[in-house]
Amino acid sequence: MLPDLVDAVGAEHVVAGDDPAVADLCADEALGVPAGKPAYVVWPADRDEVAAVVRAARAAGASVTARGAGTGLSGAATPDDGAVLVSFARMDRILEVDPVDAVAVVQPGVSLEALDAAAGEHGLTYPVHPGEQSASLGGTVATNAGGMRAVRYGVTRAHVLGLEAVLADGSLVRTGGRLAKVSAGYDLTQLLVGSEGTLALVTEVIVRLHPALPCRRTVLAPFSSAQAVTGAVARVVGAGLAPSVCEYLDGPTMRAICDNAGLALGLPEGLLDADHLLVELAGRRQERVDEDAEELAEVLGSLGAAEVFDLPAGSARRLVEAREKAFWAVKAAGADEVVDLVVPRSAMATFLSRARAAGGTHGARVLGCGHAGDGNVHLAVFQPDPERLAATLHDVFAAGIALGGAVSGEHGVGRAKAHQLAAFGDPVALDVLRRVRGAMDPDGTLNPGCSIR
Amino acid sequence: MLPDLVDAVGAEHVVAGDDPAVADLCADEALGVPAGKPAYVVWPADRDEVAAVVRAARAAGASVTARGAGTGLSGAATPDDGAVLVSFARMDRILEVDPVDAVAVVQPGVSLEALDAAAGEHGLTYPVHPGEQSASLGGTVATNAGGMRAVRYGVTRAHVLGLEAVLADGSLVRTGGRLAKVSAGYDLTQLLVGSEGTLALVTEVIVRLHPALPCRRTVLAPFSSAQAVTGAVARVVGAGLAPSVCEYLDGPTMRAICDNAGLALGLPEGLLDADHLLVELAGRRQERVDEDAEELAEVLGSLGAAEVFDLPAGSARRLVEAREKAFWAVKAAGADEVVDLVVPRSAMATFLSRARAAGGTHGARVLGCGHAGDGNVHLAVFQPDPERLAATLHDVFAAGIALGGAVSGEHGVGRAKAHQLAAFGDPVALDVLRRVRGAMDPDGTLNPGCSIR
Repeated sequence: MLPDLVDAVGAEHVVAGDDPAVADLCADEALGVPAGKPAYVVWPADRDEVAAVVRAARAAGASVTARGAGTGLSGAATPDDGAVLVSFARMDRILEVDPVDAVAVVQPGVSLEALDAAAGEHGLTYPVHPGEQSASLGGTVATNAGGMRAVRYGVTRAHVLGLEAVLADGSLVRTGGRLAKVSAGYDLTQLLVGSEGTLALVTEVIVRLHPALPCRRTVLAPFSSAQAVTGAVARVVGAGLAPSVCEYLDGPTMRAICDNAGLALGLPEGLLDADHLLVELAGRRQERVDEDAEELAEVLGSLGAAEVFDLPAGSARRLVEAREKAFWAVKAAGADEVVDLVVPRSAMATFLSRARAAGGTHGARVLGCGHAGDGNVHLAVFQPDPERLAATLHDVFAAGIALGGAVSGEHGVGRAKAHQLAAFGDPVALDVLRRVRGAMDPDGTLNPGCSIR
Repeated sequence: MLPDLVDAVGAEHVVAGDDPAVADLCADEALGVPAGKPAYVVWPADRDEVAAVVRAARAAGASVTARGAGTGLSGAATPDDGAVLVSFARMDRILEVDPVDAVAVVQPGVSLEALDAAAGEHGLTYPVHPGEQSASLGGTVATNAGGMRAVRYGVTRAHVLGLEAVLADGSLVRTGGRLAKVSAGYDLTQLLVGSEGTLALVTEVIVRLHPALPCRRTVLAPFSSAQAVTGAVARVVGAGLAPSVCEYLDGPTMRAICDNAGLALGLPEGLLDADHLLVELAGRRQERVDEDAEELAEVLGSLGAAEVFDLPAGSARRLVEAREKAFWAVKAAGADEVVDLVVPRSAMATFLSRARAAGGTHGARVLGCGHAGDGNVHLAVFQPDPERLAATLHDVFAAGIALGGAVSGEHGVGRAKAHQLAAFGDPVALDVLRRVRGAMDPDGTLNPGCSIR
């Protein structure tokens, strides 16, 4: 296989998988997913090189795993042993930002930060903020990444208008376009988004951009229970306030992220341990945002918020950033697993309560925060014993599924949750998706250990 | 097959396909698609009866076509000869409107009008308005229907959160849920939306609702060219005005729809024949909508609008309704075909110009209107000679595809555009989608004459 890979990308862009220089590339940020042992790591420069790599690997019976920035939380970028690991680090160009059609055309190795900055030069924004702006476009397309702004703008899926990708047989496919809408056959774009490199390797992405909203107000409201927060979220969203951030944080998580960020909000001591709702409003005109913030404060006050803190811009920005980094805070605090379940918005508090009860049964500490507007709950689970951790996770997932939830809201399935998806997904749907996968990759070349199995 | 169908739905809900009573059910509203000759028409009452019908048809080697309200424009509800035509007219219940999660759960036979009215009782709206509010939810899911409000809210695809459906083998599958977002395996919901009854028969739909926006202002601006309208659209959308309607109408179309609706706008005679931009703004507070309407008028004036008419509420409503009925106006005027191409928003005027030139070459009259904010152009083509009509359409489609377009923006492929999709779609993508179809329906039971072939 090595000569073919060298032919494909050039000798200087192939490294053996056991070279210590590539050790950091053999895993992503998922807790509990061990690093893979790829045969080779390659850095293609363009679509043709990606196609040649896939053909070379397939001919040799090796699998292929795509890797963006490696910031994923489910192990989708962790290669199978013996795989060819394809880094998109060299395919990192923003090919075009088009303010007339409000789209950008980018290579998969572009970071969210770079894309958003380029869009900003035209008064536009790419509003997918999954908590790590160094994430690559390709990685976020593969995992259908979400984040805090999804409550207003939707997840990655809502922004991908077209793709260019290499299929398992090395052929190049183009889907969608610079088109706001399309109804011309099954939507292959949408099938590829969230498929975690198991159906194709994305080589180019056309995304929708939005007008930037320069004016903001951010409000923090401590409540006496998660149930009260859940009720408030429905009212805030239902009132049409269209928050750009609508986050739940329990007391310990709030304390952890403030500690981690060195952030002192100046809350009265007792209130820091409350159940918090953090809401950001954004708009084109400051006076409207201010007026909405007053309406928001009234709604939250009437629903039993202990206080409604109107955060100064600096504190607001730092708190939102600290919340985005919550994963790192709980990782630093020694969390053994981070759960990314999604449930109906109205069921968030019930789910949290049942998850904590499951933790209690198995001696695990369970902290929570979440994208409250979307019902997407992130739980940090502290239980170092592997068996008791597994038992806790089983009960937590079962509780979420029983409430109508799904095993991942935004981190994806990857390797970390493939067995939970198999256990808790609709069996008929899984059978269909296995057949779809088989039809698109009959030899199991693309990321075989990942996603639908 | 008849005894099995009678077993499935009861004798009173099966009628032979050649019974004159069902003649109206054997076609939809697509121009140029002849009525099919189904073996039987059946009216199942629930998911289990749908499954039994599919099993009975498959066992007999007959195909199955689903039919909603029959308002489709591409022949997707027109059965193959010998098919079992499944009417969803009896499955027309709104099972739930949930204002807390802002979702509705409906059977496929529910009309858009009924759903929007039920949502309205909770201060919510289902904003998919494809021009015919008697359309069924199931039909709009099958075709991924769009319409005028898509510029603000997105098409049907953006609103479907979960499905229950019967697969080709009669098994029942459930996808998604009351979940604002999900990243748990390939998105089967999105694969089924727009698949026109070729992958599954939908038996239940979970849709997202939005807060209703009670305040409106509507502006009509005649320009001297379609190019000027296209330029204005980019500015209106780019300014963040988030129009709820953003329509282009050429002079003849404006005249036809006003005549058809008996609507006198009182425009100076010369201006009626201009290229028109119709923009509706909607919001929660009238003073903001008024302020935005003033900003809009300034923008349009600065871009060369001959006038900016602030339409009184009654005229505005009637004009928007008349535009929604444009298909009927051009049908009444004798149009031989209606084209539904989508191109990049910025390419709309160029496409219109090339389409008219193609009409000139083949002696066809080509009128146009379109969802300008989405680049979705509807052309009425007048050319009674079948060969010259076909030549015109070929050149029109080729022009749209050359500009980066797709063969359908919102009407779907159905039978009417299956050959255009085959001719103009990405061949690798079509091959993939054929394999997906084969994996899900290996015997070709579901609507075989339709969509990807």
